[in-house]
Amino acid sequence: MQSYLHKLRHSTEHVFNQALEELYPGKVKRAIGPVIDNGWYFDGRLDFEISPECFEKIEKKMKEIIDRDLPFVKVIVSPSEARRLFKDNEFKLELIDDLERNGEEISIYYTGDPNDQSTTFFDLCAGPHVERTSEIKYFKVLSIAGAYWRGDSKREMLTRIYGTTFETEQELKQFLYQRELAEKINHRKIGKELELFAIFPEIGQGLPVWLPNGYVIRRILEDYMLKLEKKYDYLHILTPHINNEILFETSGHLHFYKDSMYSPIEIDNQRYYLKPMNCPAAMMVYKMKIRSYKDLPYKLGELGTVYRYEQSGELQGLQRVRGFTQNDAHIFCTLEQVEQQFLEVLEMLTKFYQDLGFTNYKYRLSLSDFEKNPDKYVGEKETWYRIENVIRNVLSKNNIQYYEAKGEAAFYGPKLDVQAVNVFGKEDTISTIQIDFNLPHRFGLEYVDKDGTRKVPVVIHRALVGSFERFFAFLIEFYEGSFPVWLSPIQVAVLPISTIKHLDFATEVTNRLKQKEIRVELFKEEETLNYRIRMCENKKIPYIVIIGEQEIQTKILSVRLRNRKTVKYKIEDLENEIFLYTNKQNI
Amino acid sequence: MQSYLHKLRHSTEHVFNQALEELYPGKVKRAIGPVIDNGWYFDGRLDFEISPECFEKIEKKMKEIIDRDLPFVKVIVSPSEARRLFKDNEFKLELIDDLERNGEEISIYYTGDPNDQSTTFFDLCAGPHVERTSEIKYFKVLSIAGAYWRGDSKREMLTRIYGTTFETEQELKQFLYQRELAEKINHRKIGKELELFAIFPEIGQGLPVWLPNGYVIRRILEDYMLKLEKKYDYLHILTPHINNEILFETSGHLHFYKDSMYSPIEIDNQRYYLKPMNCPAAMMVYKMKIRSYKDLPYKLGELGTVYRYEQSGELQGLQRVRGFTQNDAHIFCTLEQVEQQFLEVLEMLTKFYQDLGFTNYKYRLSLSDFEKNPDKYVGEKETWYRIENVIRNVLSKNNIQYYEAKGEAAFYGPKLDVQAVNVFGKEDTISTIQIDFNLPHRFGLEYVDKDGTRKVPVVIHRALVGSFERFFAFLIEFYEGSFPVWLSPIQVAVLPISTIKHLDFATEVTNRLKQKEIRVELFKEEETLNYRIRMCENKKIPYIVIIGEQEIQTKILSVRLRNRKTVKYKIEDLENEIFLYTNKQNI
Repeated sequence: MQSYLHKLRHSTEHVFNQALEELYPGKVKRAIGPVIDNGWYFDGRLDFEISPECFEKIEKKMKEIIDRDLPFVKVIVSPSEARRLFKDNEFKLELIDDLERNGEEISIYYTGDPNDQSTTFFDLCAGPHVERTSEIKYFKVLSIAGAYWRGDSKREMLTRIYGTTFETEQELKQFLYQRELAEKINHRKIGKELELFAIFPEIGQGLPVWLPNGYVIRRILEDYMLKLEKKYDYLHILTPHINNEILFETSGHLHFYKDSMYSPIEIDNQRYYLKPMNCPAAMMVYKMKIRSYKDLPYKLGELGTVYRYEQSGELQGLQRVRGFTQNDAHIFCTLEQVEQQFLEVLEMLTKFYQDLGFTNYKYRLSLSDFEKNPDKYVGEKETWYRIENVIRNVLSKNNIQYYEAKGEAAFYGPKLDVQAVNVFGKEDTISTIQIDFNLPHRFGLEYVDKDGTRKVPVVIHRALVGSFERFFAFLIEFYEGSFPVWLSPIQVAVLPISTIKHLDFATEVTNRLKQKEIRVELFKEEETLNYRIRMCENKKIPYIVIIGEQEIQTKILSVRLRNRKTVKYKIEDLENEIFLYTNKQNI
Repeated sequence: MQSYLHKLRHSTEHVFNQALEELYPGKVKRAIGPVIDNGWYFDGRLDFEISPECFEKIEKKMKEIIDRDLPFVKVIVSPSEARRLFKDNEFKLELIDDLERNGEEISIYYTGDPNDQSTTFFDLCAGPHVERTSEIKYFKVLSIAGAYWRGDSKREMLTRIYGTTFETEQELKQFLYQRELAEKINHRKIGKELELFAIFPEIGQGLPVWLPNGYVIRRILEDYMLKLEKKYDYLHILTPHINNEILFETSGHLHFYKDSMYSPIEIDNQRYYLKPMNCPAAMMVYKMKIRSYKDLPYKLGELGTVYRYEQSGELQGLQRVRGFTQNDAHIFCTLEQVEQQFLEVLEMLTKFYQDLGFTNYKYRLSLSDFEKNPDKYVGEKETWYRIENVIRNVLSKNNIQYYEAKGEAAFYGPKLDVQAVNVFGKEDTISTIQIDFNLPHRFGLEYVDKDGTRKVPVVIHRALVGSFERFFAFLIEFYEGSFPVWLSPIQVAVLPISTIKHLDFATEVTNRLKQKEIRVELFKEEETLNYRIRMCENKKIPYIVIIGEQEIQTKILSVRLRNRKTVKYKIEDLENEIFLYTNKQNI
C-alpha cells in the first residue's frame, strides 16, 4: 500500500509529462517516471534543448492541467492491446515484453476519461495515483541530468528531469530551503571557491588533483595520523602503486575483486595491476622475517593510494573517485590480543573525531549469519562467535552505542564501520575496523608461539581515514569551508590599509609570522581595503590583520575575526593563540 | 692505438676462455669477450653449471696456459674461411656477416702457432694483444651475471663472467680492496641489514617497498623539502598516478617518450597511462586560472611518483627502479626572472647539500649546439643563447665550478645537472634544473603582462631530489648506514642491564624521550647486555643508553656513542643534544 504522498508525487510526474507533450508536441518520448526519496523524476528522449529556464513555463502548463481537475483512471489491458497503444515507443514495448514474460498484470493510467476524445495523456503504469489532478498543489521542477536507459551504460543516454511534490506548502518550502543550503555547502562548490581540489577531464574523471590549499590540509591530516599512530607504536611502510599479478592471485583479489580492478599493465611479459588495496603488500612485509609472539601485536601502517573502478555515472567530486589514499593499517596479533587492539583503535578513533569536533556519526557492527549462510564465511563458526562477542563486549564496556547488521560481515570476518551523516543526510563510511581470518592463511603467515609451535596470526585491517578524498569532502561540508585554525590553508591575512605607506610594517609582520611557521599571506595589491577584506572573508581566513597608522604607532594589531568582530592583539599573543590552536590536538 | 693494459686484459680474456674450454670440453660456446673500464668480461653459452666456487680451478688452469708461454698470432682471413672456422658457432657467424657487410678486415687470433697441431685456441678478434701469454701476471676472475646476446632482451640470455687484470700486483690488490669495500657499503647490503627497503619479486622487480626504518628517513626528507620550499613561497599539489592519454598527447610524451612509458590501462574505452613525469598535470594547474605578471614567479611543487620503463637487466636496488618519487617543482616565470629563479634554486640546493654534509658533487651545464644541430632545438637561437649566458653568469657570479657539455641540452632547453660521485666512483645525477621553452607552448600557457598583452611564460623544471629512491641509495652509501641523528630511524636505544630489576626506570626514560618525539626504542628481551649492545651497534643507533643500579640512583645516564665511548648525560642534556641535531637544519 503506497502512502498518499507517494501517490501525489507519482501523479505529479504524469502531469509533468503531459505538460511536456502539450508544450513540445511530437518531441517527447517517455521512458519511465518513478517516485524517489525526495520527489520524482522523468526519464525520456527529448527532441529539443531543455534547460532550467524552461521550468517556469512547464510549471505553468502543469498548473493549467491541474486546474482541469482531471481524474486518474486505471484500465487493465492485454499485452497485444498495450503494444498497439505504444507501438511507436520502443521503451514501453520493451517494458511490456518484460511484464508479459513475468506474467504480470498490464495496466494503463489515463489522465482524464479514457472514452473522451479530449483525453490525450495515458501511460503504462502500475499506479497507484490520487483521484484527481486538482489534489496536486505544492510541487516544483528541480533539475536536469542524464541517465542511461535501464541504468545500462551500453544503452541510450536519456534526459532525466527531477521534481518534487509535498502535501503542504510548509514542507515544500522547508525542502527547497534545505536543498539550497546543501547546494551552498556542497564540497564541490566550496572546493572550487577555496581552490582546494580540481578535476580535469584531461587528467581523468574521478582522479582529483589536490590544489595547494587542499594539499596543506591533506598533509596536516597525514602528519596528525602518523604522529597518533607512532604514539601507539605503529610502524609505517610505503609500497608501490602497481603490483605483480602473482600477489593478487595469492591474495585472491583477482578472483574476488577483479570487477573493481583496472586492466593490467604488461611489463616484460608480466602483468601488473594498480593495487586496489594495500593489504597484499603489507602481508609480504610481515612475512619477510620469522615473527615471534614477542613481536605481536605488529602494527604496520601505510598512507596507501589505491585505485578502484567506479562507473563514470557514479563519480562525484571527492566523494566517489577512482583513486584515493587511505590511512591504512594492518595489525597482526594473536586471537587473545584482538580485544585490546580493538579497544585501542576505538580510542584512537575517538581522539581523532574529538580533535575534529565531529559528533554526527554512528557505529555499525556487521556480523555473520551462519544460520542463513553457513557456507559464506571462512574460518570456524566458534572463532567467529568468539570474536563477535569480543567486539560487542569492547563496545558495551566502553558505552559505545552501535547497531548490529546481521549478515553484513565480509566473508573473511566481522567489521565495525563508522558512518558519518553528511549535510544531505546521507550516510557514508569514513572509518572501518575489520577482522580478517582469511588473508593470513592465504599468505601462509605465522608466528612462533611461547611453546615453539607455529601459529597463524589474526589480521585487523583498520583505516581511520578510509579515503582522504572522501573524508575531505565530508570535512569541507562539515566546516562549510571555515576550517579550524590548525587546518586553515591560510591562517593569517595581512592587509596594509595603504599599500604604499603601510607596506613596510605589514611586510615585517608577515615575515615574523612566517618565520614562526604560521601560514600567512600579505595582500598588497592596489585594490581597496574593503575589496581585500571581502576577498579574505571569502577565503575564510580566520585572522585578517589590518595595518594602518595606528597599528604602526602602537604595534598593536587590529584583527578581524570570522565573526566579523575586530579584536586588538599584540603580535606575540596572536602567535600564541595560533600555536595553541595548532597544538591543541596534543598527541 | 690501445694501451698495454688494454692489450693485457684482452689477452687475459682469451686465456680465460681457453681455460674454460680445456676444463669443460665441448661445453663452451663463446660469443664475445671485450675489455671494459675495470677489466674484461666473457659472454657465451655454457652447457654446465658455473659458480664462483669454480673460479679457483679456472685460475689455476689459466696459470698453466700462461706458463706455456704461448704467442698471440694474428691471421687475416677471407669471410668464407672465417665461416668455415666457426661453422658451429652461430654467434661468430652473425658477427662475420656484419664484418663482411661493413667491408671490414676479418682477423683471427691464435694462442700459439697457427700451424702447430697442438694449438687449440683461436678466436675471431680484431686485437690487439700482447706478444705472449707469459706477460699476464696479475689477474682475477670476479663474478657471474647474465646478459642478452647483443644486448637485445628478445634474444638469448648468455652467461657473463667478469674478470680483471693489472700490470702490477699492487694495482690488483688495491682494486680488489676497493671492490670489497664497495661491496660492504653497497646500499643493497646495508638496506637489508638495517631493514631500510626491500624488493619482493611478488610485488615487482624495480618496485621497492620502503620499510619502516627507510620510511622514517623518507618522510623526514620530504618534510625538509616541503619546509624549505615553503620558505621560498612554493605551493604544493598532488596529482594522480594515472593520467588520460589526452594529456600526454598534448604534452608530446606519447610522441617523444613512449618507450619509457608503460602500456595503457583501459577505463570505459579511454586510455590512461602511469605518468612518467609530473609536468603535464602541473601545466593543467597553472592553466586553470588567468595568470597575471603579478602572480609570477609561480612555483608549484609536488612530491610526485612517476613510473618509467627500465629493462629488467638494468634494475639495481634503489639506484635504477621502475617507479620513483621526485621532489619535483615547476617554476612559471618571465624570461627576465630566469636569472633570479636559477640563483634561488642554486641557493636551496647548496643549503640542502650542506645540511646533508655532501661535498662530492659537480655541476654539469648541458648546452645547445646550434652550429652542429640547427634543427634539434625548439625556440629561437637568440633566446637560447641569452638564457645559456644567464645561467653561465649566475654560476660564475656565485663562484660555482661547473663543466660545460655542449650539445647535451634537451631539445626543449638547457639544463644544469648535479652529478654526485658514489662510492664506486660512478657519477649519478641527483638534482637537475632545466629550462623549458616547449611545454608552455604546447599547453598554451599565458600570463597577462603589465601592458595587458598575453605572453608565454618560461617553465623551469627543477628537482632537488630527482628520485627519492636513487637519492636514498646514495645517502645509504654516503653515510655507510650511520645516518646523522636527525635522520636516524632509531635515535636512542634504552638497555636495562637487568631486564627485570632495571626495567622500570628504563621504561620511564623511554617514555619520557618518546613524549618528546625522540625516536627511542626499549630493548628489554632477555639476551645478555653485550648481545644487545652489539645488536644496537649493528643497527647504527647513535645513542645507546645503558641503565643499571648506578643510573637509577644518580639519574645520570650512561650513553654509549657510535665511537664506542661511554659518556654521562643528564636526561635533559641528551634531549637537548638530540633537538639541536634535529633542528640544526634551521630552515
